[in-house]
Amino acid sequence: MLDQQAIFFMKSIPFFSGLPAADEERLYQLSSIHDYTKGDHVFLRGDKAQSFYIVMGGWVKLYRDTHEGDEAVLGLMTRTDIFGDMAIFNGEIHPFSAQVVENAKIISIPADILKSSTYSNPEIMTRIMQSFAQQMNRLQLENEHLSVMSAPQRVGCLLLQLSGGTERQSQTIRLPYEKSLAASRLGMKPETFSRALGQLKDLGIKVNGDMVEVKNIHALAQFVCSDCSACDQDCKFSGMHQCEGNRSKA
Amino acid sequence: MLDQQAIFFMKSIPFFSGLPAADEERLYQLSSIHDYTKGDHVFLRGDKAQSFYIVMGGWVKLYRDTHEGDEAVLGLMTRTDIFGDMAIFNGEIHPFSAQVVENAKIISIPADILKSSTYSNPEIMTRIMQSFAQQMNRLQLENEHLSVMSAPQRVGCLLLQLSGGTERQSQTIRLPYEKSLAASRLGMKPETFSRALGQLKDLGIKVNGDMVEVKNIHALAQFVCSDCSACDQDCKFSGMHQCEGNRSKA
Repeated sequence: MLDQQAIFFMKSIPFFSGLPAADEERLYQLSSIHDYTKGDHVFLRGDKAQSFYIVMGGWVKLYRDTHEGDEAVLGLMTRTDIFGDMAIFNGEIHPFSAQVVENAKIISIPADILKSSTYSNPEIMTRIMQSFAQQMNRLQLENEHLSVMSAPQRVGCLLLQLSGGTERQSQTIRLPYEKSLAASRLGMKPETFSRALGQLKDLGIKVNGDMVEVKNIHALAQFVCSDCSACDQDCKFSGMHQCEGNRSKA
Repeated sequence: MLDQQAIFFMKSIPFFSGLPAADEERLYQLSSIHDYTKGDHVFLRGDKAQSFYIVMGGWVKLYRDTHEGDEAVLGLMTRTDIFGDMAIFNGEIHPFSAQVVENAKIISIPADILKSSTYSNPEIMTRIMQSFAQQMNRLQLENEHLSVMSAPQRVGCLLLQLSGGTERQSQTIRLPYEKSLAASRLGMKPETFSRALGQLKDLGIKVNGDMVEVKNIHALAQFVCSDCSACDQDCKFSGMHQCEGNRSKA
């Protein structure tokens, strides 16, 4: 059973907000909240998918090991991110592992509720479909970035994502996890990540430990977003360009 | 309305086979089949998602343009591949364009049938969820390959996918679309693709125009698959290694 703070948090997430009262009540009753320490696993690849998860605080790494033992980082999840839901509808086995990389508070929701609610309630089904479509869209964008963008652009894109948006021209951003993890997340070696950060100096980026000062967020966005196809629904910086999708609609 | 050949083809696809007779009948009645010429667009990014599609023959490229006009290829679809289904459940606007790259025969199914069937029929919903989960899994794998694999490994993986499997040790594979397209699909420049093909010579790969001779498919798989995390459900070559996911289950 969730406490008041967790219920308040859940209500703030579009996926859960405004559900029929009975569904909502059942969800809060059967869900539970857990504190995890850095290094803990939420689940391992191959585990039965008995729950799905929402991050209330901290960071969780989703990853798979290659046959040679290299780690491929599929995602870094933080506050309001949902994970582990896909497996519930596909074989009920988690296709990746989830490990806590910064102490985390995570809400766990039994898979059975999601499954039974989905079958009986088109409203919940629509939300799940939308959530899957958004996750798919994000994956396609990441794929595109790996294909089309340079290393400094990809590092710049991460800084934009970690920033507050375009409201403040100058910002200082704290890297919320280790640089080596940021590097794997972007599919590059740690030394490539550091070199790429260095190459952003001309754009007014200054690094001091895990603090990154961005002097001109618009200049950074100009440099990064020219090689991206994101539309308004994908990224808060896309408004700085005219989106291909929006052009078609016009 | 579909002809007998198209109906036979549809029945062979797991997504459609064994549906309740009434659903199946309605699907065949309201679907239609179209011939497309190389260069034709099936839809443009931003178009309303009025149908979803199954390829019966030929090749279709899914892509998005970046703001600078570069093309990011999201997928190359061929016989039995389904596309355009995600948009039906998310905003009803196609988030990418679909263009025919080798003359194609494509079955078009009205979005409304899928949507209404899903709401009324848990069986169809389960299949859609599974299809989405599989697409997501494929995207995660591609993402991983872009992050972890070398260019020759990624080119080798494409050859394995285009091959018949591990039954025949030696095989000759025809590249089904232009090399420049294969290169963009793998997120590399055409010259990187050619160089990577050349680097596979030591593994017994010989290129002659669009024909590629693979002398020892097992040696190629050994070289490629060591840096991949795919399990049996993801890839026909994964059986050559012990999968992380399978280890956990054991």
